[in-house]
Amino acid sequence: MLGGFFFKKEQGGNKVKHLLNMKNLQINDIEMILERAYEFQNGAVSDLNNPTTVANLFFEPSTRTKMSFEMAERKLGLHVLPFDASASSTIKGETLYDTVKTLEAIGVDAVVIRHEQDGYYEELMSGIDLAIINGGDGSGQHPTQSLLDLYTIKEEFGRFENLHITMVGDISHSRVAKSNAEALTRLGANVTFLCPSRWQGDFESLSSWEAVLPNSDVVMLLRVQHERHESELSFSKQQYHEEFGLTRERYDQLKQSAIIMHPAPFNRDVEIASELVESEKSRIFRQMHNGVYVRMAVLESVLKERN
Amino acid sequence: MLGGFFFKKEQGGNKVKHLLNMKNLQINDIEMILERAYEFQNGAVSDLNNPTTVANLFFEPSTRTKMSFEMAERKLGLHVLPFDASASSTIKGETLYDTVKTLEAIGVDAVVIRHEQDGYYEELMSGIDLAIINGGDGSGQHPTQSLLDLYTIKEEFGRFENLHITMVGDISHSRVAKSNAEALTRLGANVTFLCPSRWQGDFESLSSWEAVLPNSDVVMLLRVQHERHESELSFSKQQYHEEFGLTRERYDQLKQSAIIMHPAPFNRDVEIASELVESEKSRIFRQMHNGVYVRMAVLESVLKERN
Amino acid sequence: MLGGFFFKKEQGGNKVKHLLNMKNLQINDIEMILERAYEFQNGAVSDLNNPTTVANLFFEPSTRTKMSFEMAERKLGLHVLPFDASASSTIKGETLYDTVKTLEAIGVDAVVIRHEQDGYYEELMSGIDLAIINGGDGSGQHPTQSLLDLYTIKEEFGRFENLHITMVGDISHSRVAKSNAEALTRLGANVTFLCPSRWQGDFESLSSWEAVLPNSDVVMLLRVQHERHESELSFSKQQYHEEFGLTRERYDQLKQSAIIMHPAPFNRDVEIASELVESEKSRIFRQMHNGVYVRMAVLESVLKERN
Repeated sequence: MLGGFFFKKEQGGNKVKHLLNMKNLQINDIEMILERAYEFQNGAVSDLNNPTTVANLFFEPSTRTKMSFEMAERKLGLHVLPFDASASSTIKGETLYDTVKTLEAIGVDAVVIRHEQDGYYEELMSGIDLAIINGGDGSGQHPTQSLLDLYTIKEEFGRFENLHITMVGDISHSRVAKSNAEALTRLGANVTFLCPSRWQGDFESLSSWEAVLPNSDVVMLLRVQHERHESELSFSKQQYHEEFGLTRERYDQLKQSAIIMHPAPFNRDVEIASELVESEKSRIFRQMHNGVYVRMAVLESVLKERN
Repeated sequence: MLGGFFFKKEQGGNKVKHLLNMKNLQINDIEMILERAYEFQNGAVSDLNNPTTVANLFFEPSTRTKMSFEMAERKLGLHVLPFDASASSTIKGETLYDTVKTLEAIGVDAVVIRHEQDGYYEELMSGIDLAIINGGDGSGQHPTQSLLDLYTIKEEFGRFENLHITMVGDISHSRVAKSNAEALTRLGANVTFLCPSRWQGDFESLSSWEAVLPNSDVVMLLRVQHERHESELSFSKQQYHEEFGLTRERYDQLKQSAIIMHPAPFNRDVEIASELVESEKSRIFRQMHNGVYVRMAVLESVLKERN
Repeated sequence: MLGGFFFKKEQGGNKVKHLLNMKNLQINDIEMILERAYEFQNGAVSDLNNPTTVANLFFEPSTRTKMSFEMAERKLGLHVLPFDASASSTIKGETLYDTVKTLEAIGVDAVVIRHEQDGYYEELMSGIDLAIINGGDGSGQHPTQSLLDLYTIKEEFGRFENLHITMVGDISHSRVAKSNAEALTRLGANVTFLCPSRWQGDFESLSSWEAVLPNSDVVMLLRVQHERHESELSFSKQQYHEEFGLTRERYDQLKQSAIIMHPAPFNRDVEIASELVESEKSRIFRQMHNGVYVRMAVLESVLKERN
């Protein structure tokens, strides 16, 4: 059974440190990462001394996560080997294990992987010595997104305890919702869900805009993942927006201190009214900005063991 | 209304400097760029001191423009984030604005964009703080190509005044023709056009090979853009070559001092006889060589404001 | 007539050094490369002093060869320009010559090319001044793979003379088989072939597992290239494995000191039983590891002439 934010194992005397998911992540580990990210944001330089090489294996399209890692890697002074999934030997039928083992043999120290298969990393836990950072697995987890969300909330409020977090949208298909809800609850926040009942997944309680608007400190909008379940959608974008989107009317009922978050890419006028994307309460682009520092902290942490 | 080679605006106290098109480019600005490019060609090093990051967003295929920018960026010591348009979130429906804003949030200082839509940059003029360099917009403009053409002419003749420039080919669809004709005229050159009447576009006067061959200092061949209007072509490649291509017979009637230019990629035995591509009068590969220094000058210029 | 490992020509006073194939490679040259690779593996640093730029032109999918070159290039401190074949001007019909000449004009010092056409480099031998390293041409040659195979054998046994090398598989379609068999024979090894008769190609003698197992020092498994001749395959993967694959039974009959090699990507349970990929005798990932140092030596060698 896999689990744990940082999964450590002994192999040939080496500790291998990965970042796979948020499940068993210790609060201490979260705090360490957030603190180090804060230091990076304020000009700290990497503790890594030796030449270190990473590769970003994105088997699904991505702009912001991949670019954010690329930026973090350069700010840390790492060598970054370009990997093009569409032109790789995987199209000759190579397994993910063999691809990753190949990169290890070539001398790569860590890989960031985004892959459409939930828990793709389980087959990599035995036999692989390089460090793995999960950049998103199917509809599973996306731990660096969770961490940058946490960072953004901490940056805003200085705490998690007793914050009222409302998650709105496609909870059952969202990596982010699953990772975040659990971590936020452990950190002391109160998490409420607002979603169409068909997308409720394992989550028990639903709420309504009327109930959450006056109390929410954070409104986390989730992406409508058109590309994952286009055919099952029984309502139009406009209907979604009217029922579950953040409209100007709803925005105006939020507390003065409330903030709006979205993991992006967002669908304008679906999850959020286009005019609100860069509104005063929106932290959507701030999240992306913060993500670079959080990923620097994660990369440094897993690489430090090997340096 | 947009326009201006360097478009400046005040936003939060910052001047943002872009290179969008050639339209309102001051002669002073052109001369500054060409002079700085000359310095780079002779070993000058970048004035940029702080770590600077760029990304090249090519939404259309390109070898030489993209590679030329990549080389220029490395010669300037910039960090270059790899961007793969085909694997980006644009395929999840993200707008160009949101993609560029994302890169800005991540910390990118400048982007080079090639996009199939004419004037794609207009939607980026409000709200974006990073610098934009137009690497070609649809059948609009391609200012760094124009500047490297100007550089190559200046390098050859030391001046623009009273030069006879003949542009041959698909004028109405050519970014290069539009940018160049205007700039060259302002710089004092005489520009003549030779093209099939259906491609004449807004240009008024047409000429003939017989009329232009004895007088031309520069013959600028334009690309037959098969991929843009394959279906409308009412003549074969061979017919085009016979009527509008540079054949050996025509080449031999040029002045001793005349040069041949082409923005490339060229179609051998269509715009130009294959044997003439690397002939004595050809500056086709010289143009590509010069392009690196011109792009260094442009990148330095837009980035200097932010450094 | 082309040939020679290092093809030298005089052009404008410059020696241009390429690595094209193994055919006429002098034993001295091989030894020099292997020795330099050994030095790199033991921490030697590059002799190249001036800024040097390379590009990797992979017109066929590849993970390990491309990544291995990318790593070697970074370890040598080279600038690497990203080249995306699928988004290049070749799709606008540009010839390989014009693409390579373009890169030369832009200032690239060397290109690594993988191309589906046998002997693609012949059209580049006249007029091109940058260095060309063949990363695999069709079903022709793949000289850096051959060299890393030689390196791995030398590393293991300290010699080539009188070693018994058995090559198993798709000999006629394998770049590796052709390059290696010739070089190994010249170096004093005895090469035996084991393959389905339809794939025998030009090779004269075939053997059987029974005959080769007790004597082989090296078993070089070749890839079943499904993507090259799927339709002609008259037997299933399982049938291939039973007749020509390395099974546990065959493995157990090998000499204590024997090693197993495969150029990869391998098809698990086709050429080799999955459980044997990382077995004690397997050098498959060691080959990949060694490839980086061999490619460093090759790159340095061709670039040294220009530096």
